[in-house]
Amino acid sequence: MTSPPTIPVLDLGGLLLVSIQGELPDEAAVDLQNDVTAAVADTGSRGLIIDISSLDMVDSFLARVLAEVAASSRLLAARTVLVGMRPAVAITLVELGLTLPGMDTARTVTEAAASFGVTIERKDRPERGAT
Amino acid sequence: MTSPPTIPVLDLGGLLLVSIQGELPDEAAVDLQNDVTAAVADTGSRGLIIDISSLDMVDSFLARVLAEVAASSRLLAARTVLVGMRPAVAITLVELGLTLPGMDTARTVTEAAASFGVTIERKDRPERGAT
Repeated sequence: MTSPPTIPVLDLGGLLLVSIQGELPDEAAVDLQNDVTAAVADTGSRGLIIDISSLDMVDSFLARVLAEVAASSRLLAARTVLVGMRPAVAITLVELGLTLPGMDTARTVTEAAASFGVTIERKDRPERGAT
Repeated sequence: MTSPPTIPVLDLGGLLLVSIQGELPDEAAVDLQNDVTAAVADTGSRGLIIDISSLDMVDSFLARVLAEVAASSRLLAARTVLVGMRPAVAITLVELGLTLPGMDTARTVTEAAASFGVTIERKDRPERGAT
């Protein structure tokens, strides 16, 4: 049985979506970099969306990992957008002088996808459970 | 500083997307159930998409947690769709007699979203880095 990537990388209309979960131990951060870069290369995706909404802390190590993911993705012709940053994380990053160069930010996955021309749209129609 | 949910729950055009990452320790499974059910209630979402593409094993405990998440979501009027199941996981579940009642499945997030009438669509336009 082949081992799946540790970090789930989802396809979203040709974009890649990665959701970082909980505190990331150092090996997991390396996995993140490998898995995500491989996924960008394999899919030829133009865009990578990284969700950090579950993090209440981003230290300098993780900030560097994110910057390296974005840099290698850019070399593979994909742009990286960070979503879901909590205000406290933004403040800490600025205090640490970590401004995450090479990455754009967006408030939500939907907005990030829109910046790549991928729309996520609800078409109203009757649905089980809806009123 | 308030603690964020352990499990990131993303909004996708009004749907909720949860990506399960790596092996889930028992406490994390309880967090999953609490966080996801709270998110369904808070957002009034009609749909919950759970991605398990990073799992190479689903044991009976996790299968029960998933079934309970789906059951409580249904009580809150949301339907649950499971995506990204690996073939080996499907085989194991069937062998264990765990057929995940109360849940639909889809191959991809895009297909799962479509089953709720939410389209994820790429509109072609020139993009930095694209040829």
